[in-house]
Amino acid sequence: MPIDPHAKLTITGFDWVPDFARGFVRDLRPRWACEEIGLPYAERLISAVQRPAAHYADQPWGQVPVIDDGGIKVFESGAILLHLGEKHPALLPVDPQQRADALSWLFAAFNSVEPMMFELGQVTLFAAGEPWAQLRKPSLLAFIGERLDRLAAALGDRDWLAGPFSIADIAMATVLRETEDTDLLVSRPVLAAYLARATARPAFERALAAQLAAFSDKPPTSASQQGESA
Amino acid sequence: MPIDPHAKLTITGFDWVPDFARGFVRDLRPRWACEEIGLPYAERLISAVQRPAAHYADQPWGQVPVIDDGGIKVFESGAILLHLGEKHPALLPVDPQQRADALSWLFAAFNSVEPMMFELGQVTLFAAGEPWAQLRKPSLLAFIGERLDRLAAALGDRDWLAGPFSIADIAMATVLRETEDTDLLVSRPVLAAYLARATARPAFERALAAQLAAFSDKPPTSASQQGESA
Repeated sequence: MPIDPHAKLTITGFDWVPDFARGFVRDLRPRWACEEIGLPYAERLISAVQRPAAHYADQPWGQVPVIDDGGIKVFESGAILLHLGEKHPALLPVDPQQRADALSWLFAAFNSVEPMMFELGQVTLFAAGEPWAQLRKPSLLAFIGERLDRLAAALGDRDWLAGPFSIADIAMATVLRETEDTDLLVSRPVLAAYLARATARPAFERALAAQLAAFSDKPPTSASQQGESA
Repeated sequence: MPIDPHAKLTITGFDWVPDFARGFVRDLRPRWACEEIGLPYAERLISAVQRPAAHYADQPWGQVPVIDDGGIKVFESGAILLHLGEKHPALLPVDPQQRADALSWLFAAFNSVEPMMFELGQVTLFAAGEPWAQLRKPSLLAFIGERLDRLAAALGDRDWLAGPFSIADIAMATVLRETEDTDLLVSRPVLAAYLARATARPAFERALAAQLAAFSDKPPTSASQQGESA
């Protein structure tokens, strides 16, 4: 894996998160992109529990990831994927329509699919014990299901969203992983196969291992907050 | 305004939406971007009530806007803003850090602020009569308020998010307009002033007028669906 303390590119992640969040913090996305093209990166780990005040100057919500690429700072995992995608055609195709498709699907993942995963996270995890969450859950699952049916229809029998593999697939696959506590993909074999295809890529496996290896085993002294990554 | 039936660029919108959605359908975003740089565009209006089956091949969720730019098709308003931004430095700065900031804030609008506006729309409009919506509303408003406080702190005393005006401001301002039925901005004068500054731009006013002018007065025969635009 291309972790190199002297690399020009630095990815900031967390040094500890609760077990349920391990493997799901969104520095996984830039790590995966770097692994796909063999781009070396340095890790910078900060506390999710006591977030450094200065971090809010780099990331308005105090989240991770952020990157520093030779002095250029980027936040929001979507913007970081775009920044990395512009470095290599293996992440963002050069063909004009394929590039447009990759960027369309990149935003689709972030604005048309992941928003309902945020609400799902509230309903099934962060606010699972609240009466409203129990009442909301059926209609939310139905709405997500309809959206995923459209996604499956659009994907059809293609391997990847924009033709060749791209940052759109890194985005969409990591979004679809957020359904893991539901049967939303079990009943949609096209999407289950797509996610399996994505996460079987050696670059994904190396990125996941790298994120997991970065976490300390020591629990912190106070609890973490809702919404660790952006 | 640069509407020209013979333009190389076509923006697809709806020919009718209910009153509450007028001025808020997301083809407003590319219209605004075109107005900022004087880029001519043709309008293509489809039914929101009986969406053409073929439209799902262009837009997986059946929503608007989509664009056709000389044969290149793009969907998702974020991807369309990026596509248009790459045409002109008045929409996307050339300076590397300003460009990175504009793209970071573009994704921040779409993935870190607008998702909670979608939930707000459910709670205050589409599902307002549901018991869960009433129970959820206070905690959702509190969560959005915290996020907006962070946004206000990040904006500080600057006029625009990335230095010069950019597609990030078109995105964020149109997202902030989605709070109009709440007092979320009333109590945050930095953001209220930012939104007022954005919507006072002549390009915004022309784009809004163009969207409103495109709607037919005739009501359709059946009700529209949740989530008209992406």
